[in-house]
Amino acid sequence: VPRIIHVGLGPLGRRIAADVRGRGLGELVAAFDTDASMVGRTLEELGVEGAGPVRVSEKLGVAIDVGADVAVVTTASDLAHCAGTFRQLLHAGLSVVSTCEELIFPQLRHAPLAHELDAIAKLHGGRLLGTGVNPGFLMDALPLFATAVCREVRTVRVLRRQDATSRREPFQRKIGATLTPAEFESRVRAGTLRHVGLGESMFLLASGLGWTVDSWHETIEPVLADRPLRCALGEIQPGRAAGVRQSSAAVTADGRRIELEFIAAIGADDPVDRVSIEGDPPLRLEYPGGVHGDTATVAITLNAIPSLLASAPGLHTMATVPLVRSWAGVGGGVAR
Amino acid sequence: VPRIIHVGLGPLGRRIAADVRGRGLGELVAAFDTDASMVGRTLEELGVEGAGPVRVSEKLGVAIDVGADVAVVTTASDLAHCAGTFRQLLHAGLSVVSTCEELIFPQLRHAPLAHELDAIAKLHGGRLLGTGVNPGFLMDALPLFATAVCREVRTVRVLRRQDATSRREPFQRKIGATLTPAEFESRVRAGTLRHVGLGESMFLLASGLGWTVDSWHETIEPVLADRPLRCALGEIQPGRAAGVRQSSAAVTADGRRIELEFIAAIGADDPVDRVSIEGDPPLRLEYPGGVHGDTATVAITLNAIPSLLASAPGLHTMATVPLVRSWAGVGGGVAR
Repeated sequence: VPRIIHVGLGPLGRRIAADVRGRGLGELVAAFDTDASMVGRTLEELGVEGAGPVRVSEKLGVAIDVGADVAVVTTASDLAHCAGTFRQLLHAGLSVVSTCEELIFPQLRHAPLAHELDAIAKLHGGRLLGTGVNPGFLMDALPLFATAVCREVRTVRVLRRQDATSRREPFQRKIGATLTPAEFESRVRAGTLRHVGLGESMFLLASGLGWTVDSWHETIEPVLADRPLRCALGEIQPGRAAGVRQSSAAVTADGRRIELEFIAAIGADDPVDRVSIEGDPPLRLEYPGGVHGDTATVAITLNAIPSLLASAPGLHTMATVPLVRSWAGVGGGVAR
Repeated sequence: VPRIIHVGLGPLGRRIAADVRGRGLGELVAAFDTDASMVGRTLEELGVEGAGPVRVSEKLGVAIDVGADVAVVTTASDLAHCAGTFRQLLHAGLSVVSTCEELIFPQLRHAPLAHELDAIAKLHGGRLLGTGVNPGFLMDALPLFATAVCREVRTVRVLRRQDATSRREPFQRKIGATLTPAEFESRVRAGTLRHVGLGESMFLLASGLGWTVDSWHETIEPVLADRPLRCALGEIQPGRAAGVRQSSAAVTADGRRIELEFIAAIGADDPVDRVSIEGDPPLRLEYPGGVHGDTATVAITLNAIPSLLASAPGLHTMATVPLVRSWAGVGGGVAR
């Protein structure tokens, strides 16, 4: 039974911590968050049902000193922001699973840092893996595994189209719902409106296929309401943003292509997750209705732990660890 | 570039050998088959395009002595029949990929032998993996990976329904097309009519999920023609077999279930590969139109090689090696 530290106790971190107990997957031994108002409080007080007497430590080092096998880090999307945390955990020889989106394929935007973290992990027997439903599965690891039955792959296209109507308010805000096109544009320029990780998904795919990307680009634009729509933020008039459409495309020198399209919008028709492969054989794989993101990310973060623990020390991706799958933990009539 | 030995030069083995060259995946250094009429002939003479001067060795030991990293074994479906070959290759420290259906999860029907092969592999630095499109992917490894985003799994159902009209004649014969129900029944009793590996797929899934199977059973029956049908073997009158329907179901002590259904029949409507998961979240994943089997098995057998070589010595399954994906080999504008 792995002993687990939780770093980052926002809504996602708390749901994951609750599942460690609820699913019988490990022992919750310590917790840390930079939010001073949490320090000294028990996880139970923070809403983690059944978490027992574990209190939020005032320093990460204090949490580490409790002694653990695994750390679950749910703090930030950008790797630079998480780097200090990862260094400290890896120095202690821990196996670290994180939802940090840029960690899905850190070689893309942070190559020297990726190299450094890999070296620290190897030196101290630690492991580091970024995961999540997207990035981490639907638009990268799953399409990559889908190619296993192809003797040739010329193009990989992945579409994730979500109807955001039933998603929580912060998500609707994140995708720009209700904004005018000008407001949308200015938030994109400020870097506060984008799905983080699309480029990382693309390079995880390209790297896994053994492709060298010759050129690539990303685009982001609003999905404009074509009729009055309602969401948690209020009414959306026609011509205002209902959500976001983000694309990433890469091409190799010999003309192979990866095309990823991410759409999340209020009232989006025909939600679906779809992988289309031009190759031999050609393939189309889809989730009719799509995969709802919140629960799936909570799940895959914990499900990745046994695969990471079975891997050699170092920096990993979802393509270098043994197949991640749901696991039933101890008890419950199940066994490994 | 791995140096590869081919063991078993039937139609499947020859197609795989041709792809090693065609895809630039390795160096074809030796070959062996028990068919005396092949001994001394070059692979090129046996129809492997571009295979060069490699000749079929008279003994497996002679092929091994050429010196290789990997052996591809495409000989028989039953593990007992392949065991001697695997022992010899593993003794030489080779990494062995095979389409032997029972090798997908050899612990099911050959636990002592699985244990022995694992021990030999570990002692000599060899590796052993069974793969294929089915068993090996569509009804086991893929549904297992699909559960990665589930925090709970109660039931996994997998349906593979193939229209066998365009498949090659030996496949149509194998599924019992044109037989009377009595003939079909007698071939089932003789053990010459079944899809080998359905039970192995089920236990690969159960084991991967950490489930202990409490009881399981398999059924096999003809799909009867409800109208006149034509196939490569001639006309099929209504009431005669158009193909086979085979099911495997397992249940755990706490009521979790795995249900696999394999249908291959002339004129089967709505061919599809579908995974349905009752759990949290519930999921439905499908290949509309299904995946054609022949090319896919050729592909995945070679695609599994880098993942097996990246694993520790020993007996592996598709769930213990890093994610298998299509790879582009050397040259062709691509790089690892």
